Amino acid sequence: MNIVVQKFGGTSVRNLECMKQVLEKVMVPYEKGNKVIVVLSAMAGETNRLIDLAYEWSDTPDLAEMDSLVSTGEQVSVALFSMLLKDRGIKARSLLGFQVPIKTDSAYSRARILDIDRDKIEEMLQENDILVMAGFQGCDEGRRITTLGRGGSDTSAVAMAAAIEADVCEIFTDVPGVFTTDPNICSMARKLDHVSYDEMLEMASMGAKVLQIRSVEFAKKYNVKVHVRSTFSDEIGTYVTQEDKNMESVLVSGIAYDKDQARVTLSKVKDEPGVSAALFTPLAEAGILVDMIVQNPSRDGRTDMTFTIPRGDLKKTLEIIDEIKEPMGAQDVLYDQHVCKVSVIGVGMRNHSGVASKAFQALRDENINILMISTSEIKITCLIEEKYTELAIRTLHNTFGLDKSGSDENSL
Amino acid sequence: MNIVVQKFGGTSVRNLECMKQVLEKVMVPYEKGNKVIVVLSAMAGETNRLIDLAYEWSDTPDLAEMDSLVSTGEQVSVALFSMLLKDRGIKARSLLGFQVPIKTDSAYSRARILDIDRDKIEEMLQENDILVMAGFQGCDEGRRITTLGRGGSDTSAVAMAAAIEADVCEIFTDVPGVFTTDPNICSMARKLDHVSYDEMLEMASMGAKVLQIRSVEFAKKYNVKVHVRSTFSDEIGTYVTQEDKNMESVLVSGIAYDKDQARVTLSKVKDEPGVSAALFTPLAEAGILVDMIVQNPSRDGRTDMTFTIPRGDLKKTLEIIDEIKEPMGAQDVLYDQHVCKVSVIGVGMRNHSGVASKAFQALRDENINILMISTSEIKITCLIEEKYTELAIRTLHNTFGLDKSGSDENSL
Repeated sequence: MNIVVQKFGGTSVRNLECMKQVLEKVMVPYEKGNKVIVVLSAMAGETNRLIDLAYEWSDTPDLAEMDSLVSTGEQVSVALFSMLLKDRGIKARSLLGFQVPIKTDSAYSRARILDIDRDKIEEMLQENDILVMAGFQGCDEGRRITTLGRGGSDTSAVAMAAAIEADVCEIFTDVPGVFTTDPNICSMARKLDHVSYDEMLEMASMGAKVLQIRSVEFAKKYNVKVHVRSTFSDEIGTYVTQEDKNMESVLVSGIAYDKDQARVTLSKVKDEPGVSAALFTPLAEAGILVDMIVQNPSRDGRTDMTFTIPRGDLKKTLEIIDEIKEPMGAQDVLYDQHVCKVSVIGVGMRNHSGVASKAFQALRDENINILMISTSEIKITCLIEEKYTELAIRTLHNTFGLDKSGSDENSL
Repeated sequence: MNIVVQKFGGTSVRNLECMKQVLEKVMVPYEKGNKVIVVLSAMAGETNRLIDLAYEWSDTPDLAEMDSLVSTGEQVSVALFSMLLKDRGIKARSLLGFQVPIKTDSAYSRARILDIDRDKIEEMLQENDILVMAGFQGCDEGRRITTLGRGGSDTSAVAMAAAIEADVCEIFTDVPGVFTTDPNICSMARKLDHVSYDEMLEMASMGAKVLQIRSVEFAKKYNVKVHVRSTFSDEIGTYVTQEDKNMESVLVSGIAYDKDQARVTLSKVKDEPGVSAALFTPLAEAGILVDMIVQNPSRDGRTDMTFTIPRGDLKKTLEIIDEIKEPMGAQDVLYDQHVCKVSVIGVGMRNHSGVASKAFQALRDENINILMISTSEIKITCLIEEKYTELAIRTLHNTFGLDKSGSDENSL
């Protein structure tokens, strides 16, 4: 049994006309004799409407009730889409989280998938040619409805593809695939034919909104072949797969950026054991995601600590620091909201040195000052002043030969 | 464990303000130490919105998908209402059809309840003081969502009350209870303190919209004490219960009417075996509900057949007759849309004669011509010209002493 999983987001199913376009996409693998599992999001705007409703009712809506509430969005989509299929005489049915079941833990609003009953799915695929599954939702042990967090439909689709060992998981979106960088900033950006799970993870964590980060983790873990492609054309998009020889020959796959950053510096902090914990524990407890951290070498028993956080958390962060700066002995608290992270990403870096220095040189040549640096095995990230974002991206894109249309290779 | 079931319709939960009023109603039994099961409908207008959506998508929406679609209406209500309860610090949770589960057959859009898991409910009532159950919905053996038909939330509430042996099932509505007749037509109409299941069934089948007819059947079968009362006041409404001695002393409990009627006559039909079947079988197959039927005594081997149907089915009925009238040998087809059924209802009739003749005399005294008559053990129904409806109701109401405020007795 050849099975294709296809996922369509809220924009793709926002009204009847759009759903009819989705129907044509679904017909492609169906008419080739595949069984198809279609995963749908709520119609665009619906999830927000339901969330707004909840906040009208309560300032702190109960999370379990919230999940049950917002899951109705997908329930509506799959019922309506299944009606279209039935009208075409296709053996099809809708499938809700509790019907599969998509078993999750009970972390309402951000549940994790524990198990999908493969036998049940196969049984339903015997009776149906197309299953229309509600994305984003699952069901915990007590039969309560859970949701997987924003963008969770990607994860639903990939998890289903993993469970059923589908041939491919097609994620339809409003862009033609994964690009070397943001085409809105760099007109030379090219669509990638292939990208590895790890590269995709780095790009996703940098705010590239093509795929939910957890869906990529899932795909990597279960080796699901993901095909990111456009709802609005029939062209091949980008395959997200395990890295292969071919990919490693490519030094850099893309340039990512994230403007949602703020930098905070505590100067002249006492350099003694426990100081980092004193700072970062209360931030973590407040749910603030600290990203880059730099601690300067100590001088006279004092050091400067600098870190970045999401811009929206700056106020809360400063409030927390206000309470702890005295025991830490901090002299000053400095912050800057006009910063941006720019990253050079590529699995090829694993086997090549010199990428970092080449990146730094390129930025220096444009007089772009690097405020902070962090690196991983396949990524080099520089924090720069926000105003240089576009220039830095175009420069790095050009430096690593990503402009070269048709070529998937670039060199030092 | 004392348990009270309370059911609130769509108007009662149509927005936040209304839900807060419902909350106060729920607090009454809760604060007396009862466990409460609240059954809610969809917010007013929501079910129709979803049905309209379905018909935008398909001229003949798949019924199973339709049920899954419209059941989201109740899902939204119960989630939002539970949020209010949680905010008050009350141990409460929402409960969907598949979570109870309310097991039904698979007759989508008009499913019948087969079983409710009492142990599961009791378990949940150990952990919660209030359960907020979605009305109207259930779940079949294959875990698909079913609905119980329009007004099905009444049935949900009564079925739950039966399963859990609740002390009372309170049906909150926009009227203060069950009346001797429609107060909009007869200003002398009085609220009844008690009415029997059988009387309520006859009233409901005559279009009295206070309770869904199936919920009354359910209440009768399981002897559930139903209390119909107003959402907008704290006054006692009407108890619907088994008949007792006291009720039998009351001759007539109410006057009901139904304007949604049309009368059709086939004249000079061959009076031979199989003629009735030839007429009524195709009508039944077309789903047309034939109500009163009168066949005149035969003359010269020919007879007139007259029957009533819902007014909206007249066109379809005439089309069907057009095809069969020739083989039946019918000479003429006559019809009249301007007719109305008026009924005198009361369990006391069982033990008293003379009610019918008294009713006929009263109508004759007002020069109201009776077009057709049908009777049951506790009901006398007359078909009259529609224009006399109000006059007939007021006359009968007065004739049987229903005007007498404070008195529950009336005599021949």
